[in-house]
Amino acid sequence: MASHGFWFTQGGENPAGNGSQSPNTPRAWCQAAAQKFTGGIGSKLCALLNVGEAEKASQAPVKTGDESPAENCGCNKPCDCSKAPACFSDLYSTDLLPALDGDAKTMNFLQEVVDILLAYIVESFDRSTKVIDFHYPNELLQRNNWELSDEPETLDDILISCRATLKYAIKTAHPRYFNQLSTGLDMVGLAADWLTSTANTNMFTYEVAPVFVLLEYVTLKKMREIIGWQDGRGDGIFSPGKAATECEACFNSSSEHFWSCSMSVGVSDDTQGGAISNMYAMLLARYKMFPEVKEKGMSSAPRLVAFTSEHSHFSIKKGAAALGIGTESVICIKADERGKMIPSDLERRIIEAKQKGCVPFFVSATAGTTVYGAFDPLIAIADICKKHDVWMHVDGAWGGSLLMSRKHRWKLNGVERANSMTWNPHKMMAVPLQCSALLVREEGLMQSCNQMQACYLFQQDKHYDLSYDTGDKALQCGRHVDIFKLWLMWRAKPQHTNVCFWYLPPGVRSLEDKVEKMKRLHKVAPVIKARMMEYGTTMVSYQPQGDKVNFFRMVISNPAASFEDIDFLIEEIERLGQDL
Amino acid sequence: MASHGFWFTQGGENPAGNGSQSPNTPRAWCQAAAQKFTGGIGSKLCALLNVGEAEKASQAPVKTGDESPAENCGCNKPCDCSKAPACFSDLYSTDLLPALDGDAKTMNFLQEVVDILLAYIVESFDRSTKVIDFHYPNELLQRNNWELSDEPETLDDILISCRATLKYAIKTAHPRYFNQLSTGLDMVGLAADWLTSTANTNMFTYEVAPVFVLLEYVTLKKMREIIGWQDGRGDGIFSPGKAATECEACFNSSSEHFWSCSMSVGVSDDTQGGAISNMYAMLLARYKMFPEVKEKGMSSAPRLVAFTSEHSHFSIKKGAAALGIGTESVICIKADERGKMIPSDLERRIIEAKQKGCVPFFVSATAGTTVYGAFDPLIAIADICKKHDVWMHVDGAWGGSLLMSRKHRWKLNGVERANSMTWNPHKMMAVPLQCSALLVREEGLMQSCNQMQACYLFQQDKHYDLSYDTGDKALQCGRHVDIFKLWLMWRAKPQHTNVCFWYLPPGVRSLEDKVEKMKRLHKVAPVIKARMMEYGTTMVSYQPQGDKVNFFRMVISNPAASFEDIDFLIEEIERLGQDL
Repeated sequence: MASHGFWFTQGGENPAGNGSQSPNTPRAWCQAAAQKFTGGIGSKLCALLNVGEAEKASQAPVKTGDESPAENCGCNKPCDCSKAPACFSDLYSTDLLPALDGDAKTMNFLQEVVDILLAYIVESFDRSTKVIDFHYPNELLQRNNWELSDEPETLDDILISCRATLKYAIKTAHPRYFNQLSTGLDMVGLAADWLTSTANTNMFTYEVAPVFVLLEYVTLKKMREIIGWQDGRGDGIFSPGKAATECEACFNSSSEHFWSCSMSVGVSDDTQGGAISNMYAMLLARYKMFPEVKEKGMSSAPRLVAFTSEHSHFSIKKGAAALGIGTESVICIKADERGKMIPSDLERRIIEAKQKGCVPFFVSATAGTTVYGAFDPLIAIADICKKHDVWMHVDGAWGGSLLMSRKHRWKLNGVERANSMTWNPHKMMAVPLQCSALLVREEGLMQSCNQMQACYLFQQDKHYDLSYDTGDKALQCGRHVDIFKLWLMWRAKPQHTNVCFWYLPPGVRSLEDKVEKMKRLHKVAPVIKARMMEYGTTMVSYQPQGDKVNFFRMVISNPAASFEDIDFLIEEIERLGQDL
Repeated sequence: MASHGFWFTQGGENPAGNGSQSPNTPRAWCQAAAQKFTGGIGSKLCALLNVGEAEKASQAPVKTGDESPAENCGCNKPCDCSKAPACFSDLYSTDLLPALDGDAKTMNFLQEVVDILLAYIVESFDRSTKVIDFHYPNELLQRNNWELSDEPETLDDILISCRATLKYAIKTAHPRYFNQLSTGLDMVGLAADWLTSTANTNMFTYEVAPVFVLLEYVTLKKMREIIGWQDGRGDGIFSPGKAATECEACFNSSSEHFWSCSMSVGVSDDTQGGAISNMYAMLLARYKMFPEVKEKGMSSAPRLVAFTSEHSHFSIKKGAAALGIGTESVICIKADERGKMIPSDLERRIIEAKQKGCVPFFVSATAGTTVYGAFDPLIAIADICKKHDVWMHVDGAWGGSLLMSRKHRWKLNGVERANSMTWNPHKMMAVPLQCSALLVREEGLMQSCNQMQACYLFQQDKHYDLSYDTGDKALQCGRHVDIFKLWLMWRAKPQHTNVCFWYLPPGVRSLEDKVEKMKRLHKVAPVIKARMMEYGTTMVSYQPQGDKVNFFRMVISNPAASFEDIDFLIEEIERLGQDL
């Protein structure tokens, strides 16, 4: 194991340790921290102890004075940190800005919070810490006072709540967290997100978010150029979240213990973003063909049908249900053994639908399906869409980011012929949650589809170019600022692998009866996952797919993960599952 | 003017000043800051200079070494700050965590970002600074390099981008920013938002967000208790934003220059949240009455009609357009002169719709309408909904927070009889953007309406209570964590006023012809607003409503605003508009 971590030492590396990942002594820890770092960093690391102590702290305030020298670092331990003492136990939120003379108190308070966060960040990347300190819901409810009372709490209590919240949070930045598509924590993205929170505005109008609106404009244009739309023309929006996934050779290789595949880009989960983007696309496709539905509803249109691969993300059906189209009008096209949509089946079903008097209006091809991570053949699909005059959408929530890769972008060849595309930089590009874009080729359509021209908001007599007031083209009214983190990260850096596999415990391996073997194998992953969460050492996702029983699907989008971490995961699965 | 600000002094207060809000000298400024604050705060304030220098900095890097002593504070000025020198010009994002030994560099970088943010916060609350440094879009595009290149930038460049972004941002926390409903910046809410970004997870499952899922559970239950639903039972979700508004005696008082009203709670804008919450409510109402629409689409249902006040938020129509119901099926009910829905008109239109063979399925009453801020009479509306068996929704995006006020909650009497309610704590409760809740009385309905049971995400063989996996009841797939800031603020504190008015410039005041007078008056507010933004001294919103020409609508939800700030706004409007 890498000796990356330096204060939480484990087992043999820490003879004085109690085995539960605590430092030798607080004083020694603080001294070590102070030696390692110049500036005020030592005191920040000191706050790490607070995280470790959150549980205790959340049960009983520990500012006892007796134990602490006059000048302590706020970590409730006697130490050499030079941090000014802070007394938050007498302060309330009303003492902070905009209170008169609230400046210093506000800065002290926010700095204390940042110290907690910095310590959490460093801890998150430390392999010797747990990924998760798991507790069942009822147990977690009882481990801290989470209730909302009618009395205000002191800032000290607020800080304790922050520590407790982080103590029980999943360390999504941990090198051994493989559970979701969105793993890892990018430091530039995080900085951008802190700035976004501080700017606290809305993507509604240029008036209230001039820079962010411009950055969205610049970034969407760049994304459309990358898609290949002429001069980057078109439209787009960053919308509130879903997702969708390549695992091109899944389930076919084998070793003694594992059936696995190693892919260039892989299995998505789907845990965020994109669902709304996909719904936007479906809404635009319907509006393009039957604009009267906006005013008159679906009764003014014939029966519309949409097409998507049987492996596509469930958001397509969710969208159809919400839009009044109905899930039964989403026709699932067969996928080949690698999970790619079969174009001939698409065309057959389109013709069939027409013969039944239905109107095909929307094809959603997937660039990176949810489980296998397959890329549908976009060129063949584009040909069919053109021939039958159907809107072509590409759900690239997961795989869209491959457009940024010279080596892999061929997988999306044909995307430039799509009418719209979902692309979630918060997944493969590791932008902090959430960041999901819908790109649209036709200019002006989003505006006319969604606008309601509320005169109290989009005053037409403003003194600047109103094309920058993007609010009325959104389905929701206001939008969170999701652009800055992507933009700033893009400025800072202009990578992936996946594995889908089963673990066959010795007891299962030896079974001859195939039906019984699959039945037993289906139960292996859930048990291992449950044990894994209780140990808290690593996290990976599992699920069944079609006729395939529960298997692990691993995404390595976390830049912190090393080969050793993958080995660790494999060994951990074997350790936790060998008795099954 | 209050002498709250202490470093950016204006005019007479700063004899050495150049009139453009810069400090006397950097050194003097740093010394003053160091004297005022203990601990490391002086150096943080020092960074404020960087914000002021962002424009220069963004045009040419200023780390020249020549000017700076060996130990400078990073603010590129000779000064006495004790901050360790930081050289970001040789560092790239790849030097930060998870890079080996990236800990110290990461902490230095994030601390630098925090210093910039802390300085921005203190500056935002300083009345002697501008609310907005306004530039037209094309001009702003040229004032900085916002483009995305193919080469990575240094961390120094990244910090310069952060400063430039803040320099041109609207100071939504400024005591004289009245432009939107969501004004002010709450320090506890901000701290919570920073923590949320750092935790970087998703509200999808208990597995990935155990604490946040529990806090949402606890908070939604508390909100339902406050609504008055038995034992806080029911369901709910925090969804991606809209909004809606009271101005009970608007347009009726008068002074020589202004026609105004002073209300307890007032005019909303609508700039965020709630639109999706309202759409959720409509979706649930349709599902409750015609569950088959989920699978079969709107063709399986009769013509559905929804009812809402003519003063309601446009999101109701937007929702109807998206859901395939059609905007023409949203029947606008007359409002009285105060903007409240007239119950007898509601009942008349319901009966009329039934006679035409339509099925009334949804009534959206507004608690705080968008422009006047009126509260619809909920008890009378509840009686009608019950009689005709129609789903009653209360859009309390703006006014819902009055439920927290012993003095004002009577305005929502009857809300406990609603089937659903939208309530946006990011507005009147000043929670950072965004935070919009939909509360539903019936348990289980959201789940059955929206679930698609994706087995790869919501594994039914997990080892914990699956009722905490809230993802499948959401319309989108993943959800941003919007709960923690509300929860933490609620723990920290367990307040409002509005004015709608016209300003009549002398030239307009003297006009006899009423038609001409209104025509001229209509143009007054846009001109004043444009001038106001160019000066950047304060911001307030304007719009027309019905037959009423453009008027100002002001919301005082910013705790930083004082009586003097209101006086300032009034004087500023008069100063900017007296020649009109």
